[in-house]
Amino acid sequence: MNETVVTSVRVVDLRFPTSRESIGSDAVNKDPDYSAAYCILETNTGHRGHGLTFTLGRGTELCVLALEYLARFVKGRTLDSLTADMAGFCRQLTDESQFRWLGPEKGVIQLATGALINAVWDLYARVEKKPLWRLLSDLEPEQVLSAVEFRYIDDALSRGEAREILEEARSGNAERMELLERDGYPAYTTSVGWYGFSDEKIRTLCHRALADGWTNFKLKVGGDPANDLRRGRLVREEIGWENKLMVDANQKWGVEEAILRTRELTELEPWWMEEPTSPDDILGHARIRFEVPEVRIATGEHCHSRVMFKQFLQANAIDVCQIDSCRVAGVNENLAILLLAAKFKVPVCPHAGGVGLCEYVQHLSAFDYLCVSGSMEDRVIEYVDHLHEHFVEPVRIRRGRYLMPEAPGYSIEIRQESLERYRYPDGDAWRDESAVGAVVMVGK
Amino acid sequence: MNETVVTSVRVVDLRFPTSRESIGSDAVNKDPDYSAAYCILETNTGHRGHGLTFTLGRGTELCVLALEYLARFVKGRTLDSLTADMAGFCRQLTDESQFRWLGPEKGVIQLATGALINAVWDLYARVEKKPLWRLLSDLEPEQVLSAVEFRYIDDALSRGEAREILEEARSGNAERMELLERDGYPAYTTSVGWYGFSDEKIRTLCHRALADGWTNFKLKVGGDPANDLRRGRLVREEIGWENKLMVDANQKWGVEEAILRTRELTELEPWWMEEPTSPDDILGHARIRFEVPEVRIATGEHCHSRVMFKQFLQANAIDVCQIDSCRVAGVNENLAILLLAAKFKVPVCPHAGGVGLCEYVQHLSAFDYLCVSGSMEDRVIEYVDHLHEHFVEPVRIRRGRYLMPEAPGYSIEIRQESLERYRYPDGDAWRDESAVGAVVMVGK
Repeated sequence: MNETVVTSVRVVDLRFPTSRESIGSDAVNKDPDYSAAYCILETNTGHRGHGLTFTLGRGTELCVLALEYLARFVKGRTLDSLTADMAGFCRQLTDESQFRWLGPEKGVIQLATGALINAVWDLYARVEKKPLWRLLSDLEPEQVLSAVEFRYIDDALSRGEAREILEEARSGNAERMELLERDGYPAYTTSVGWYGFSDEKIRTLCHRALADGWTNFKLKVGGDPANDLRRGRLVREEIGWENKLMVDANQKWGVEEAILRTRELTELEPWWMEEPTSPDDILGHARIRFEVPEVRIATGEHCHSRVMFKQFLQANAIDVCQIDSCRVAGVNENLAILLLAAKFKVPVCPHAGGVGLCEYVQHLSAFDYLCVSGSMEDRVIEYVDHLHEHFVEPVRIRRGRYLMPEAPGYSIEIRQESLERYRYPDGDAWRDESAVGAVVMVGK
Repeated sequence: MNETVVTSVRVVDLRFPTSRESIGSDAVNKDPDYSAAYCILETNTGHRGHGLTFTLGRGTELCVLALEYLARFVKGRTLDSLTADMAGFCRQLTDESQFRWLGPEKGVIQLATGALINAVWDLYARVEKKPLWRLLSDLEPEQVLSAVEFRYIDDALSRGEAREILEEARSGNAERMELLERDGYPAYTTSVGWYGFSDEKIRTLCHRALADGWTNFKLKVGGDPANDLRRGRLVREEIGWENKLMVDANQKWGVEEAILRTRELTELEPWWMEEPTSPDDILGHARIRFEVPEVRIATGEHCHSRVMFKQFLQANAIDVCQIDSCRVAGVNENLAILLLAAKFKVPVCPHAGGVGLCEYVQHLSAFDYLCVSGSMEDRVIEYVDHLHEHFVEPVRIRRGRYLMPEAPGYSIEIRQESLERYRYPDGDAWRDESAVGAVVMVGK
């Protein structure tokens, strides 16, 4: 057998100037330039692995630098040596004896770890000639478990319990596979209700989304209370009450304010309230949930590790577990979080949007459905219709559902033209920008 | 009045090759090269402000890069505009609309924020010609409160409650000031019991520390259980039972293991068990504390924000609150944490050691004693006797107590010769090292 060896790792700082159109704007993140620290593993066999971590523009260079450092843990290694002990490989990254101090397992170094681990899984799936979701669901339970880091979570989920969850989910797996391939996985759209959008734009986008078959909609809140309500009523006018509406405050409020504001918004009958307060405030979320029992509480896109998710679940703080594909340590850590959520019977509804997050998370939800929770009930994947054109294998949506990807890998490869055009700061999309800036400065 | 304006910010990557002697070694951090991302604010009036964030070597470049980015928030600004609204200034750093995604308020960007905010306080104290602890204790309660970010903690500590704590602590302030200036602040030493030290070295160091008047000692544990106990008994043989012994596992264990291991170590009658598990595991610490009530539980050196400290306190998870001077957003955020700890009546015993942490934290404990908790009971500052020679105003220790610094500022200015010698990678201390590496590579 010709062993695949990682010969080099290329890292690219990739930024899209989305802030120019208020795309992605919310109460806290007002002007994001959707960006990514992107890496490509090159091998001796011609296979490549791709991974990225999502950022909002400035600071991407920090993730790039961290990735360039961590790359040494895959360079020169055989793919087999990485995949044979995925948890061990992950621990090499998260336990690097000096680097670890900068986290541990949080912030910039964790974001970079996520990109690199995801790139290894992309490579693995490509070598196996399977889309990642199928590779994962073809693994034996023991193989899945060997990718899970149980350290710091085994008080809530033992290896034995995790194995039981995986074993139990085997029953009905074939029927679910058939359904999934036929109908896809349900989604919701965030594209209609960005914070910076005008009323007219929201109405038009709701119309268009309904015509396209969407039934689940998200609205950004966290501004002036009366205005939030007004915008919510406007969306309800457009989508009616039979469709689902979620609201998202993007961490805007303190705990007391979040309780008041969530109560006010009950009028809109939200399917969930997302990120009502600090993403680190487990006890705060638990209190909000307790005080406003009529609204389901969701968080997770800023939750930096399985240790935090464990506590959100232990504390009964959330009704909806919003995993993110690259804020935590990639596929590995998300396997742990899916298993934890299944143990606590909390549905997983992944965070997506950004750059590549939709492409990523469809694989994780498919695996959750096939092999972990075994259910699509109360489960939807976020969808945002930006930037997919930059991917070699963009997501496919039909009538508000993700259709399963068929190409080998993790769907995260960026097109060569896009890599060149949006590379920061020297791609064409930014060179023009800098040129404008330079002229202005000269003019002063 | 001649307004002080910050004209430039210089950032230095500073690394000390401490790993060569196992200095600072513990069960998790086996080979730290004590390092810092260090910044110097230059002004139009000749005053300078100094700040650093402590790291373990590799990855310091990430903090340097983050600091270089954040520097734009002080460059060109008057000192008055910064100090008039310290909380507002802090929020500019932590809420930077794109950078924030990389945290928020955690990891690399938070470490860099801490260094920059501390540098502003150093400058402020120098301009006022006071050591920082005296500057802080001379502030009116309202001025202290204006530096505190209450967002995300006001459910546990309102502004009004914080004001009451500060007002109440005014009584007896003058007497405490006298005692503090005369006797200093109690400390404990970590220098006798690093993980990598031999038995003989530990004995010798205990002897020497006793002779120097130390009464509080810390031992690193988290290795083989029998060996931990053996080393603990050895220390007890040397220091007796009337002196205090703390044990520190540096996050080595999961929750269940931490419970077992902490129980085993009760034989040593530890004054506290430090970092028994993940620093993010609030509920885990609460459970360990509940299950082993005979040992006091301590954590905090890896606790990244006031939101996390708030929860450790709300959950009754800790008996000892170990603030760190530069993992959180500097002096500002530590004011919030001191007030939270006072509200919950948990003593603050700062983490120190590393590079400059002793120099920093003496100011915070003095302020806590004078203006917040009003007590030294059950309170000690960590002390480690390394690297002080690199500071212009190193800490002064007498018979196991910190003597209060008298020079203006935050005591964190590094000597010019040290800056040059330990600058990474081009200082002499590292050029030699690289030269050795280069020769080896050429020889291959």
